[in-house]
Amino acid sequence: MVIKNGKATGVKIAYVGGGSRGWAWGLMSDLAAEESMNGTVCLYDIDFQAAKDNETIGNKIKETEGVKSVWEYVACPTLEEALTGADFVVISILPGTFDEMQSDVHTPEKYGIYQSVGDTTGPGGIVRALRTVPMFVTIAEAIRSYCPDAWVINYTNPMTLCVRTLYEVFPQIKAFGCCHEVFGTQKLLTEALEDIAGIKDVKRNEIKTNVLGVNHFTWLDSATYNNQDIFPIYAEFAEKYAKTGFAKTDNNWMNSHFACNHRVKFDLFRRYGLIAAAGDRHLAEFCPGNWYLQNPDVAHSWGYGLTPVSWRKEELLQRRARSARLVSGEEKFKLNETGEEGVQQMRALLGLTTLVTNVNMPNFGQQEGLPYGAVVETNAVFSGDSVTPIMAGGLPAEVLSLVSRVSNNQETIIEGIFCKDKDLILDAFLNDPLVTCSMEDAKKLYQEMVENTKKYLEGWEL
Amino acid sequence: MVIKNGKATGVKIAYVGGGSRGWAWGLMSDLAAEESMNGTVCLYDIDFQAAKDNETIGNKIKETEGVKSVWEYVACPTLEEALTGADFVVISILPGTFDEMQSDVHTPEKYGIYQSVGDTTGPGGIVRALRTVPMFVTIAEAIRSYCPDAWVINYTNPMTLCVRTLYEVFPQIKAFGCCHEVFGTQKLLTEALEDIAGIKDVKRNEIKTNVLGVNHFTWLDSATYNNQDIFPIYAEFAEKYAKTGFAKTDNNWMNSHFACNHRVKFDLFRRYGLIAAAGDRHLAEFCPGNWYLQNPDVAHSWGYGLTPVSWRKEELLQRRARSARLVSGEEKFKLNETGEEGVQQMRALLGLTTLVTNVNMPNFGQQEGLPYGAVVETNAVFSGDSVTPIMAGGLPAEVLSLVSRVSNNQETIIEGIFCKDKDLILDAFLNDPLVTCSMEDAKKLYQEMVENTKKYLEGWEL
Amino acid sequence: MVIKNGKATGVKIAYVGGGSRGWAWGLMSDLAAEESMNGTVCLYDIDFQAAKDNETIGNKIKETEGVKSVWEYVACPTLEEALTGADFVVISILPGTFDEMQSDVHTPEKYGIYQSVGDTTGPGGIVRALRTVPMFVTIAEAIRSYCPDAWVINYTNPMTLCVRTLYEVFPQIKAFGCCHEVFGTQKLLTEALEDIAGIKDVKRNEIKTNVLGVNHFTWLDSATYNNQDIFPIYAEFAEKYAKTGFAKTDNNWMNSHFACNHRVKFDLFRRYGLIAAAGDRHLAEFCPGNWYLQNPDVAHSWGYGLTPVSWRKEELLQRRARSARLVSGEEKFKLNETGEEGVQQMRALLGLTTLVTNVNMPNFGQQEGLPYGAVVETNAVFSGDSVTPIMAGGLPAEVLSLVSRVSNNQETIIEGIFCKDKDLILDAFLNDPLVTCSMEDAKKLYQEMVENTKKYLEGWEL
Amino acid sequence: MVIKNGKATGVKIAYVGGGSRGWAWGLMSDLAAEESMNGTVCLYDIDFQAAKDNETIGNKIKETEGVKSVWEYVACPTLEEALTGADFVVISILPGTFDEMQSDVHTPEKYGIYQSVGDTTGPGGIVRALRTVPMFVTIAEAIRSYCPDAWVINYTNPMTLCVRTLYEVFPQIKAFGCCHEVFGTQKLLTEALEDIAGIKDVKRNEIKTNVLGVNHFTWLDSATYNNQDIFPIYAEFAEKYAKTGFAKTDNNWMNSHFACNHRVKFDLFRRYGLIAAAGDRHLAEFCPGNWYLQNPDVAHSWGYGLTPVSWRKEELLQRRARSARLVSGEEKFKLNETGEEGVQQMRALLGLTTLVTNVNMPNFGQQEGLPYGAVVETNAVFSGDSVTPIMAGGLPAEVLSLVSRVSNNQETIIEGIFCKDKDLILDAFLNDPLVTCSMEDAKKLYQEMVENTKKYLEGWEL
Repeated sequence: MVIKNGKATGVKIAYVGGGSRGWAWGLMSDLAAEESMNGTVCLYDIDFQAAKDNETIGNKIKETEGVKSVWEYVACPTLEEALTGADFVVISILPGTFDEMQSDVHTPEKYGIYQSVGDTTGPGGIVRALRTVPMFVTIAEAIRSYCPDAWVINYTNPMTLCVRTLYEVFPQIKAFGCCHEVFGTQKLLTEALEDIAGIKDVKRNEIKTNVLGVNHFTWLDSATYNNQDIFPIYAEFAEKYAKTGFAKTDNNWMNSHFACNHRVKFDLFRRYGLIAAAGDRHLAEFCPGNWYLQNPDVAHSWGYGLTPVSWRKEELLQRRARSARLVSGEEKFKLNETGEEGVQQMRALLGLTTLVTNVNMPNFGQQEGLPYGAVVETNAVFSGDSVTPIMAGGLPAEVLSLVSRVSNNQETIIEGIFCKDKDLILDAFLNDPLVTCSMEDAKKLYQEMVENTKKYLEGWEL
Repeated sequence: MVIKNGKATGVKIAYVGGGSRGWAWGLMSDLAAEESMNGTVCLYDIDFQAAKDNETIGNKIKETEGVKSVWEYVACPTLEEALTGADFVVISILPGTFDEMQSDVHTPEKYGIYQSVGDTTGPGGIVRALRTVPMFVTIAEAIRSYCPDAWVINYTNPMTLCVRTLYEVFPQIKAFGCCHEVFGTQKLLTEALEDIAGIKDVKRNEIKTNVLGVNHFTWLDSATYNNQDIFPIYAEFAEKYAKTGFAKTDNNWMNSHFACNHRVKFDLFRRYGLIAAAGDRHLAEFCPGNWYLQNPDVAHSWGYGLTPVSWRKEELLQRRARSARLVSGEEKFKLNETGEEGVQQMRALLGLTTLVTNVNMPNFGQQEGLPYGAVVETNAVFSGDSVTPIMAGGLPAEVLSLVSRVSNNQETIIEGIFCKDKDLILDAFLNDPLVTCSMEDAKKLYQEMVENTKKYLEGWEL
Repeated sequence: MVIKNGKATGVKIAYVGGGSRGWAWGLMSDLAAEESMNGTVCLYDIDFQAAKDNETIGNKIKETEGVKSVWEYVACPTLEEALTGADFVVISILPGTFDEMQSDVHTPEKYGIYQSVGDTTGPGGIVRALRTVPMFVTIAEAIRSYCPDAWVINYTNPMTLCVRTLYEVFPQIKAFGCCHEVFGTQKLLTEALEDIAGIKDVKRNEIKTNVLGVNHFTWLDSATYNNQDIFPIYAEFAEKYAKTGFAKTDNNWMNSHFACNHRVKFDLFRRYGLIAAAGDRHLAEFCPGNWYLQNPDVAHSWGYGLTPVSWRKEELLQRRARSARLVSGEEKFKLNETGEEGVQQMRALLGLTTLVTNVNMPNFGQQEGLPYGAVVETNAVFSGDSVTPIMAGGLPAEVLSLVSRVSNNQETIIEGIFCKDKDLILDAFLNDPLVTCSMEDAKKLYQEMVENTKKYLEGWEL
Repeated sequence: MVIKNGKATGVKIAYVGGGSRGWAWGLMSDLAAEESMNGTVCLYDIDFQAAKDNETIGNKIKETEGVKSVWEYVACPTLEEALTGADFVVISILPGTFDEMQSDVHTPEKYGIYQSVGDTTGPGGIVRALRTVPMFVTIAEAIRSYCPDAWVINYTNPMTLCVRTLYEVFPQIKAFGCCHEVFGTQKLLTEALEDIAGIKDVKRNEIKTNVLGVNHFTWLDSATYNNQDIFPIYAEFAEKYAKTGFAKTDNNWMNSHFACNHRVKFDLFRRYGLIAAAGDRHLAEFCPGNWYLQNPDVAHSWGYGLTPVSWRKEELLQRRARSARLVSGEEKFKLNETGEEGVQQMRALLGLTTLVTNVNMPNFGQQEGLPYGAVVETNAVFSGDSVTPIMAGGLPAEVLSLVSRVSNNQETIIEGIFCKDKDLILDAFLNDPLVTCSMEDAKKLYQEMVENTKKYLEGWEL
């Protein structure tokens, strides 16, 4: 790679999970739209054909109108080939299949436990971690061997535990995790600015926020537009829509499995005075189960739905079909700004700009009150070859009480998986906020869910 | 007061709640049995007649056989008179009456929430705190005014919040809280030594333990007899009695409202590898409500009962009757070693001995992972005019997850009461481990319980 | 003030020390060159005529060619008038006169103690603090009264103690201190890039550095240009010029009282592997006196001189004369980019941009190993209405040993001045690295220097 | 080993440096006087004959009058034999010979640097550490191999670096360092009690103190007798003897190389309000060289002398002669209470008693403001199989400034020795408070001193 006159040429990006039919296409689009970098993207996937298909799709992009830089895409059959020489590693994988996710999300329903997402926390998040962490061990070891100086960007859930694993295996790793949930909340703040104060056309990244907590259970204790404090505006907004929720007609939760009416967020604000900064489907899963997820009706009354895995399976078929069309040329690739920041982060790490944004990284002291070393989500400065956390301060006790429970559970899970100690993970399972059934039932549920994912648990005593 | 040749004469003790018909008599007994101190005990109580009765009872003790020192008892009509010139202040009060406690303990049952004690945590403990903290504000202000250099020993529940209040009002106060629950656990360890290892006649204070956590949710991560590690013995003991529980025939929970079969303790040990160091009735209340307190049957199945307030009322009548007999002389006072350490702590503070024992004090760093300034229970050294915490280390993440939730809730409650902010306290109430009903019901319950204690909440917006 | 379309109009800046004939003119120039802001600058000075003169000078600037915004300058007779309604407060004062500074710098020479600057540390810096801190108490109190929400930028030395005073008096103050010494070092790094690696035309703010330590004794433990690590280049540079020093012909220390040949910096790098980030004249004063300041010859041998106060007096006369010419119009004001960042910091605080730069602020945890609350110099993010420190990490023990001595001395000095405790300040004086004479002589020296500044020490027992 | 009825039989103590002709005899005496333990002492020494001689001397003790327990002494030719099966390890060695110590202490005098002891800090202490640390590496490795569960008591200087080495090599080691300097200060406090307050016959261990700092530069911020604060008494005492010093006729520094008149201690108290808790000969060496050690006359004027190594050599001859007499039986061994606490510490570790005393251990948080992991001297509780530090709090900034410089230098030295990095150690050498000569001379001095000890520096680049 050479950097000259504000341009980086010959950048090498390794994409782990490069057969992805969502994130990968987004990255392709963002890369093509960025004129200050070019190079090669090495696609690695356990489904090599999927990587091959993306190679084909990626290499066609240069013909698309509006492309500002040319990237070569290469499917690589091994991690070693993909990683060797990489400047950046992007990790975006699906740990297991939707069959296991079906168990993660729906088995708990037998015991009256409902999950709106089921990939980050709760019974589903915990068991998903059992599958995912060992994969991240493999990836971290490969990075240590083949590209120890590369910057590593993770998009995979459960985010906190994935990033935590990378650092546990290879403490010198230069890794962080990215998630767009805070961006979504910043978008909501622009809508509040318009709705309450009549301030229009503000872009989400013009909203400056201080970020605390852990991924998907993230909190803002300050937010400004220019030098204006948004909190009083948001307070009015939350009050106005406390009962009805706030939804754009094109993005109603009844039509979209990813949408919500923000009633959970408004309720949390009215109680805590802080802005919870994730979609309500995520937030609800981190709160005690009797709050927002007692049953599907309660969830609906709060303005969001539970995403069934059957829908995910259905939607995957559509993406596969689209992939085939893109490979064959039947459908043309279109450049779409994703709103993700990965490419801008890379530019900053190359020293081409400076960027302040939220990331998931180990707590080196930036977040008071949460365990040192646990992965937290706070702001950081991206600059030449560095990502440095910004002092985030602490959460008030009433919120810290919720978040420290989660963070310590996550530490327990990690230790349990690294020790292959099923009982230690049960400690976290029983203390998960969503596990509200009797202790006896909870133990049965855990046993059944572990059973359903056991093929990923080599070497465990189950 | 004069200290000479290892004896302290003219010691002045102020007893707040000096009309007590339990703790006060115990202190009288322990003082009479200690030859190295004498002096005056000033009894203050909002029920002045009760204090007067104890004055009469106390002053008769000198005639009892076996008395080793003579103490004068004086009922004082005001805090000022009782405190002025005091070397020590003992606080042991009942905040409100058993009528309010009836609401604290039994109102939640309407919503399926059961409490085994209801004076420390859970809905009952929180609402009890609403009444108690303002009383402790008054006491702390009086101590600051009338005897700022006195050592203050608290026995009142909710222990953590009472001690926290003393320091919040008067940060230079020399105060700590004492509780015998750890002693009870040390007693259990002597029983394990006998039952498993055949080691007999060990006294509970020959068992050395490291203490962590908060009052009534206290944990031991080491325990030795001589230089022998007791953990392997306790492990065997917990396994042996995991299902049946361990109970002496004279102390079965079915016969005694304060007893338990230790099954909760054994279960926690088998899960966490740490010895929970309080009675099971207390421990159960700090755990998620679906573990050990789902309903009375579940509690009974774990080998303990729920103490009804009706029993407390009944038992109070008996104590009143006994008081009348002691005052009239119909019954003679008998010296009984209480097993409490208050008198030995006083001796150590006078420099007559050195004592290492567990106390409740603000966290100055002795307990890793819990908030700085929150009240924690750890060991401390008592020496001439000093109580110095010993480094306790930290709890493993799986236990810290439980305890930090509690400790942060306690910090929230304290802030809420000091600000008379009913909504802030609701934050803690909704996040209490026992509050497992729907959020809507929980809010109704809170409103009703607060209503029932509102005469103690002067100046609040309710 | 109104912010619209990326422009802030009606900004009010209060300038304390607004009669300044250096910094004030620089600010005028930088403001005039910035098109995105306009408004009013209120000039307050104990020398009202000087402020009046600057009012005249400032108001003429709008006629200068190249001006991009118009600012109104108003001399204010009281702090209250200057501060009321201010959005920003700039503090740049001379505490006392050059007569007192003459004593600060040259009295110690009688005892063999030499100072190259004498305004930050050493005997001179300490005694200067005696005069300065009370002035900052007055300023902080006025800010608290008249513009508590304003952002406060300090340029006055001793920087650390000035900023520390602001926060001690008014803990909620939004203040920070700015110093260009790190910028100078970044400039040197661009010269190293050219000299060693042939990389030309790099601007100093394209060099990204991590900053640690305290003002004027500041350290870099990383430095990049693009994503290139500059340390190996600087290592070669320091080696190459270790003996000769590195000096541009137009900026030789023999010709300029502010210049140096960087030999001290190179020596420190070769010993510690860190880049000391201030002029050598400053660095030398923080090191043990026997290292670089044993006597003037030793200083010269290290490539820098001692700035005599006589020169400062002389130079002041020239600035006064220039002021007269500017007031009369005999000389035209010219726009000169100062290289200072004050105006860009203001823009960022108004939300018009985001800026990462080094500032002096209390240690909230951003700098490991130095006292919490002490003022440290590290990077911070400037964003809408916020300056948030970035985690700086810690210094290696061999450097921390030097810096913590200094920082703790500074804490001692602050406490001593706030308590008017001459003896406590003597503790810091005797432990100052430059005080190498016998203890007896040091006490005499201290007494004499305090005597010489006593008219500023109202209410002290001297 | 068996513990029964409060007695431990079959205790095995390994004594490293068991040929010692001072400490070893003291331990023999203390063991013989303690009735609650008996067993075997294994003597290991690189001078095997010296160990053999002590075996002979030790085994004769049982014939001495007043002996309360019988110990068997065995000289062991290897560390392995001595350590295997040990319950306790005592380390008391002379690192190198008095020839090297001659260089340590007297070479610096060529450059005007005087040392009163020269074995802990200053140029002499640093170079002594070069010899000692590798020996402690060997010992720690042997303990890890042969008796990892043994408790290890170190008496060797430089204390801090010796204990630090043990933990660096074997982090799970159960080790601490003991020093009687605090005891000596407690003795002085009893003398103050008598001299000022007329309170007689107080024993030094009846004085309760809070201990902070590092070995030989240790500070008391509280001291009580019974519950009486000794500070006001000591203040009067320090004032009374500030000029003359305080000396018992039988212990004048002019007659004894270990005595002092406490003028340094009094001076430090008058400045800092804290009681420095070591002999003045030690204290002076940790202060800037221009304070108390500018030259021998200054030292004498402060009431203490510089101990020449020639005297140590002379005194060793006398001890050798006494050893011969004891071996031959010409002289009878007499039981003498040493005042050391080693034996009582062992009893406490066996669970036979509880003891609170000062020890040297890594900073786990007990000492605020000093580096985590650095060895500090604070109080600890000795109990069954545990030594737990007591929270010591922090030093005021004016003292912390002195002590943190020392502690960080010690951390630098350790890192330097473990890395065999001569230049890193030079960093600490140049920043040592006693190194007041020019930097150039200091480098020469360091080179020369290292040269004189180079035979102990295998594998170094010198």
